[in-house]
Amino acid sequence: MELQTSPLALPFPDMPPIEGVTLRVARARYKNWDRCDLTFAELCEGTSVAGVFTQSACASSEVELGREQVKSGTARALIVNAGNSNAFTGYRGREAVEAIQAQVADALGCGALEVLVSSTGVIGVPLPKDKAREGVAGALNAEPCGWEDAAASINTTDTFNKGAHASAIIGETRVELCGIIKGSGMIAPDMATMLGYIFTDADVEPAFLQEMLSAANLRTFSCITVDGDTSTSDTVLAFATGKAGNHRITGWDSPGADAFAAALNDVCRTLAQLVVRDGEGASKFISVRVSGAVDDDSARAVGLAIANSPLVKTAIAGEDANWGRVVMAVGKAGEPADRDKLSIAFGGVWAARDGLPVEDYDETPVAKHLKGQEIDLAVELGIGAGSATVWTCDLTHGYISINADYRS
Amino acid sequence: MELQTSPLALPFPDMPPIEGVTLRVARARYKNWDRCDLTFAELCEGTSVAGVFTQSACASSEVELGREQVKSGTARALIVNAGNSNAFTGYRGREAVEAIQAQVADALGCGALEVLVSSTGVIGVPLPKDKAREGVAGALNAEPCGWEDAAASINTTDTFNKGAHASAIIGETRVELCGIIKGSGMIAPDMATMLGYIFTDADVEPAFLQEMLSAANLRTFSCITVDGDTSTSDTVLAFATGKAGNHRITGWDSPGADAFAAALNDVCRTLAQLVVRDGEGASKFISVRVSGAVDDDSARAVGLAIANSPLVKTAIAGEDANWGRVVMAVGKAGEPADRDKLSIAFGGVWAARDGLPVEDYDETPVAKHLKGQEIDLAVELGIGAGSATVWTCDLTHGYISINADYRS
Repeated sequence: MELQTSPLALPFPDMPPIEGVTLRVARARYKNWDRCDLTFAELCEGTSVAGVFTQSACASSEVELGREQVKSGTARALIVNAGNSNAFTGYRGREAVEAIQAQVADALGCGALEVLVSSTGVIGVPLPKDKAREGVAGALNAEPCGWEDAAASINTTDTFNKGAHASAIIGETRVELCGIIKGSGMIAPDMATMLGYIFTDADVEPAFLQEMLSAANLRTFSCITVDGDTSTSDTVLAFATGKAGNHRITGWDSPGADAFAAALNDVCRTLAQLVVRDGEGASKFISVRVSGAVDDDSARAVGLAIANSPLVKTAIAGEDANWGRVVMAVGKAGEPADRDKLSIAFGGVWAARDGLPVEDYDETPVAKHLKGQEIDLAVELGIGAGSATVWTCDLTHGYISINADYRS
Repeated sequence: MELQTSPLALPFPDMPPIEGVTLRVARARYKNWDRCDLTFAELCEGTSVAGVFTQSACASSEVELGREQVKSGTARALIVNAGNSNAFTGYRGREAVEAIQAQVADALGCGALEVLVSSTGVIGVPLPKDKAREGVAGALNAEPCGWEDAAASINTTDTFNKGAHASAIIGETRVELCGIIKGSGMIAPDMATMLGYIFTDADVEPAFLQEMLSAANLRTFSCITVDGDTSTSDTVLAFATGKAGNHRITGWDSPGADAFAAALNDVCRTLAQLVVRDGEGASKFISVRVSGAVDDDSARAVGLAIANSPLVKTAIAGEDANWGRVVMAVGKAGEPADRDKLSIAFGGVWAARDGLPVEDYDETPVAKHLKGQEIDLAVELGIGAGSATVWTCDLTHGYISINADYRS
């Protein structure tokens, strides 16, 4: 099945090189395709690393190893395999990862645990060691490439290349952050894992990089949903080479820490939204803004209940301002809510306020808003000061076609 | 939009009258349709009542009142309105319910709180008191009718009438249980609430009827899902008239308590499965059997995570034995699981065992099984003795058509 570029796609941005990061891609031919499917990022000595991983109880070997590796705080290389997720492959899967780590560590003269590996694609088939070996060998000898080649190389069922860039000033020093990501939902026989990588030349203490990434994750990657399904391999890694020469950021008291955290959050949010924009069958990008919850976590839970509701998502696909379905989704979220204080707006127009339909509600501007590609849905719970924004896409015939009609 | 009868529909069963229960239906014309949409069940004095209700935080007035009413333990009447759910209508909605209660109580010479009311249909519009008054007056004067007329009268977007029957022997006395139910998902502008009513001539202490109904609910109504969405009005009520003259069942020590509980469970399971069989767009009825969980609750949570996964449901719609998506759903359930002990079978054939694909896995019988209408999916977690079975349907283009293409 030929996948068409998502109507919500955005062009790949201009992104500067990051000193201390060298990108290369190669053909491991994990699938019967003629494209680069192995991505290699070489990182200079002293690079800090942080990561967030899927909470799946059935995570892949790559995730199990990665969780341990980021604790050490430093990394020298990243390898991403596209076309085979190496998930549900037992000890053979783990051996394949360890072979890649050994091969790269040998070439770079670093420790095997400083080589991070991600894989995405078909599950239940151990990553073929011979293909991986040849792919890694090819990547080690390849010419360096740019961000978009790397972004394309990590893709599987994605319909466009995804990248994001931000800058921050730390003292007198300008630092750059560049990120790439893949993910579009989950599609048979692949599991379209979300894999995101952020690189910066800033000098950041690993423990604090982890703290900032975890915080950003809660407001960005953890606030998106395409179909509510979670891959066994979802991973976001951040690498900081330190080559910008800024005064090292070690905590919130460090000069520029806030600016760096804001830039990191920016890149994470843009990357997260790009995944939604490539959601399977998506025709509309939906922002669900929840306010008035007892706290931010509760607001996020309500937002995700709305964003995961098939009835809300199909209503928006049908350009129907069906606030009754939003009431239903709020009710089922399992979070504190009061029916008689609930207000709901589409495109800034309140359809229901304080638990009652708005009497002089004019559907004309709402109908026009819903015909657009960018939908804004606001829910005010009226019981507290917690807020969160969650992003999702609509649920269309395209989703069913991709996931049901297509046979593995 | 004309809804076609579900391909998974079953014929309405033969069901005997229940002594102490008189059914009548009438036209309240809550919508612009020519059909009975108000159902009245008159119950003899001394009828015990028990109920389970939606856990929605935005429940309707009917649910709020009902939760309190069943605590008294006795009921004399049930009124069901179809076409208007009276949800999200504030104090005016509550007044409409209280007016119905007063009118029926006046006619029967009973207390207003002995009159239970349910409503299903469009939300955000207070139940029109004049239509309700005329409808109730009509029902009070109507000729008694049979089970299928009552079942048809409570329907909204259902595509077939749903009933279930079971018997039990208590001592020397045979008692009958008859149930009707409506629900098919949730459809704009209606919320296709699940409303179920079970009537028996057995003599049962109200508190114990509640205990048995709550227990049955956990293994039946709480084990079905069409789209993971929960109505603000879901309700199941059980009424026991006591006219069979059995030795009153007051607890598990009472003779026949186990037999009665088994029959009640039977009726609940059949009714619950009928709702799934009328799931919007459903083409396959799916049983998800989970075993080897740490406990039964955990097994049910894993089962619901699988049954609610759009990726699992679309795979089955596509007749694809995609066990990788099942692994994914198990992983995201948030329940204890061990990737390397997980086994998955379709139609009794293991596709994966102990965390690895089965080496000599023959897909031929599985492909044949998936072409059928009744799909069996078994998941063995291998870490405990907990088990549960959950029922759902597949996710098809029909669901999208009903929920997105149809405009309110």
